[in-house]
Amino acid sequence: MKLPVSTEWLLHCAATLAQLEPGVTASAAQLAEYFDLPAPYLAKQLQTLVRAGVLVATTGPRGGFRLGRPAAEITLLQIVEAVDGASSPYECREIRQRGRGALPPQDCQDMCVLARKMADAHEAWRRSLGGESLADILATLPASAPARTRSRLAASGSSRSS
Amino acid sequence: MKLPVSTEWLLHCAATLAQLEPGVTASAAQLAEYFDLPAPYLAKQLQTLVRAGVLVATTGPRGGFRLGRPAAEITLLQIVEAVDGASSPYECREIRQRGRGALPPQDCQDMCVLARKMADAHEAWRRSLGGESLADILATLPASAPARTRSRLAASGSSRSS
Repeated sequence: MKLPVSTEWLLHCAATLAQLEPGVTASAAQLAEYFDLPAPYLAKQLQTLVRAGVLVATTGPRGGFRLGRPAAEITLLQIVEAVDGASSPYECREIRQRGRGALPPQDCQDMCVLARKMADAHEAWRRSLGGESLADILATLPASAPARTRSRLAASGSSRSS
Repeated sequence: MKLPVSTEWLLHCAATLAQLEPGVTASAAQLAEYFDLPAPYLAKQLQTLVRAGVLVATTGPRGGFRLGRPAAEITLLQIVEAVDGASSPYECREIRQRGRGALPPQDCQDMCVLARKMADAHEAWRRSLGGESLADILATLPASAPARTRSRLAASGSSRSS
């Protein structure tokens, strides 16, 4: 049971974008250099956050990514599920209805109790991540963090040569 | 983020063994036929539960598997972690310490806040599954279930010809 490596990338990129002034964007190249990540692959991954509405992509010479809604309205769950999907890690193939022990269909109208307990656990996980917003994360950072983040990000990527 | 398909197999096999009379065992062949599963692969997987202490394997002509401790002391978490390991699905590679935005080591003595929130969610998942025992699962089954399970299991696998 593994989340993609890019989960860490996108959580950090979103938390970084949450520290920019309203309306300011950062390019995939800037974010890639900021975290020393492979830019083309990161760009692709950032698009998954755009599709999920977590980020907005703007075009043009100063184009890039910014948050798609306020940091208080973006949860870690939304980011993680944009990367990995929302399905439970447990797959129930209804083996209770197979083989010599097969239960008759009328006994299987309710969800299998084991599948239900696995789903409950997945819900507990989702609730935990759904209760943490980017604003909550930012509130844990030192007061000096946003200024540092902005200045280092501005010095990164395609804008470096300016 | 996927658990192995065998997770369902082992949850059901353990719940099935929990319905046998004390001291009675079932072979891998019986369990495989009971659920229509590939016997050699199931046998291998059952050994992971033996290594975790969830099951005991006995040898000899009537050898097989039985619970390694009372059903009330075996949690779904122990079974799932025997199959898949206990590590978190989220991997933190400390990208906060990499690239142009790298935080200095003295700012990274605490765990990354994002990794901590991901670990909290994994703990919520573990707590949920750790709070459900095989005895809890059995308590949800109809009163007629154990007798049916025993009789169908006895008719399965290598003992079928007797």
